Amino acid sequence: MSLVELSSSLLPVIEKELQHQVSRLNEPYTHHFYEMLAYHMGWIGKGSGPGAQGKRIRPLLLLLTVAACGSDWEPALPAAAAIELVHNFSLVHDDIQDNSDKRRGRDTVWVQWGIPQGINAGDALFVLSNNALMDLAITYSATTILNAAKTLHEACLDLTRGQYQDISFEKHSDLTIGDYWLMINGKTAALLSAACVIGSILSNANETTQKAYRDFGHYLGLSFQVQDDFLGIWGNAGTTGKSIESDLISRKNTLPILYGLEKNGEFARRWNEAPVHPEDVADLADQLASEGARTFTEETAYKLSNMAQQFLHMAAPQGEAGEALFQLTNKLLSREA
Amino acid sequence: MSLVELSSSLLPVIEKELQHQVSRLNEPYTHHFYEMLAYHMGWIGKGSGPGAQGKRIRPLLLLLTVAACGSDWEPALPAAAAIELVHNFSLVHDDIQDNSDKRRGRDTVWVQWGIPQGINAGDALFVLSNNALMDLAITYSATTILNAAKTLHEACLDLTRGQYQDISFEKHSDLTIGDYWLMINGKTAALLSAACVIGSILSNANETTQKAYRDFGHYLGLSFQVQDDFLGIWGNAGTTGKSIESDLISRKNTLPILYGLEKNGEFARRWNEAPVHPEDVADLADQLASEGARTFTEETAYKLSNMAQQFLHMAAPQGEAGEALFQLTNKLLSREA
Repeated sequence: MSLVELSSSLLPVIEKELQHQVSRLNEPYTHHFYEMLAYHMGWIGKGSGPGAQGKRIRPLLLLLTVAACGSDWEPALPAAAAIELVHNFSLVHDDIQDNSDKRRGRDTVWVQWGIPQGINAGDALFVLSNNALMDLAITYSATTILNAAKTLHEACLDLTRGQYQDISFEKHSDLTIGDYWLMINGKTAALLSAACVIGSILSNANETTQKAYRDFGHYLGLSFQVQDDFLGIWGNAGTTGKSIESDLISRKNTLPILYGLEKNGEFARRWNEAPVHPEDVADLADQLASEGARTFTEETAYKLSNMAQQFLHMAAPQGEAGEALFQLTNKLLSREA
Repeated sequence: MSLVELSSSLLPVIEKELQHQVSRLNEPYTHHFYEMLAYHMGWIGKGSGPGAQGKRIRPLLLLLTVAACGSDWEPALPAAAAIELVHNFSLVHDDIQDNSDKRRGRDTVWVQWGIPQGINAGDALFVLSNNALMDLAITYSATTILNAAKTLHEACLDLTRGQYQDISFEKHSDLTIGDYWLMINGKTAALLSAACVIGSILSNANETTQKAYRDFGHYLGLSFQVQDDFLGIWGNAGTTGKSIESDLISRKNTLPILYGLEKNGEFARRWNEAPVHPEDVADLADQLASEGARTFTEETAYKLSNMAQQFLHMAAPQGEAGEALFQLTNKLLSREA
């Protein structure tokens, strides 16, 4: 079975488990509260449907890892839901923190229900992730569940660290590429790494294998983010769904931009001089490329992607799920630029 | 040993454990993030000290319950810290949701560092509560820890439900006393109840005892809130630290106010007619009392307090800690009006 076939059988089951977990709040007197969460998850309201639900990469990685370690993935579904709920908690709060009014083309939760309920909806998704983990007790030993929980909680701490750095960095213009790695480790890599580690824990994989999956997830996350940063400047709007070169306009602290600022050449001069207007974007992207940022970003993504693949080889994933993990890695890291 | 003596030996140890748990974020590159949390906890910054730290009722209840069930309280410290961290996470977010600029006389976190970092600081306290629970593994079996964790996670779900209702209720003027009970169950009673249940779980108390502690904590919480509502209108500013009769000015949905609105008499007419000004407060409080709200609130607090004491008798707490639990109940529920 290919990744496409495996995904098409796993994704509906993941969605069903997520719906089951979130339905804890679907009671008569909190029905409207439940609806906020169901709206964010893409199940109800204007624009709901698969396009509004996200790619569910983290639960997919977790279940594929369980299967690639030779175990049945089905009992691991509550853990898969837990990690996706954590991711969504962070998105709901991130949208408030970034003052973003749209996510996947739809109004964000705080736009629909206000900031106070938006904060509370995010909190609820986080609490639900904890509740979901407890459902693992149907199948797994208490010790195994605690190991999985500890891994997730550590990743959540990294997530808040990364978020702290991201918010702080918006106010500072003297960021270095070193700061960047700390930030994306927390914001992107920690949860992808935890998904793989938890998958290997639930399969009773040995320490060496767990460590290989941890590093695989870590480098997958870093590489994915660098790739995303590349696309944010030199990506094709048609394939990424973003308006072309938007990171230059939104002044995000991405790898190529930080590279250009560290170079302190013509790009940095123009960047610091004035806000970037849509008509300047193409020219500024070329300037950034001419100073080496494009090549540097591509090479970095390539190196990180190689690291991810090496660690996946070390983890020695088995069977169709193992092949699917290699395919998923390739797919995530070679989106059309 | 009296409650005062027990508290004065427990509180410094609780504070030390809290500092240990929060110090997970005290690393070179997240030191400033750590400082936000340490500021909120009352350890550093302007106005820090015991007065800024809160009463630590929840960890105190948890540790006293452990001891009153005949076990050593010391290994339970990470659980005591976890429940206080959850409480503080909810305070930090509550201050943003209520637009409150002061807590215990000091600037709130969001006032000092902005809403985005305020949200993230609350999130971090919540994550740290999960990390703290994992430290129980030094002493307790994995099964016991999972039972404690499940209890805390359920209470957190109730907390977000209560918060949802509180925020919703601010926009509606047709609230009933029935709605009120749902709200304070989540906002106040759930966590106090969980503190007692977790204490009994960590002592390996039997199901009947656990249930008695659960109900004790539940009615203690309800009674405490009703008492607080009473003081919000008829309390003495000097003993409560609130400006006199502030709930009438801040238009909080408290029990006596909802009682008056349900009566639909002169109080309700004046309440709905215009905002309450400081010079009207004394007269309006008298009007509310003359319609029976003061007696109703006192009687309700008295009944709930009796329920709490009955369940505590059923739980049969032992030794000095048991006596201290009775004393704590009396102290919490008979603050000077």
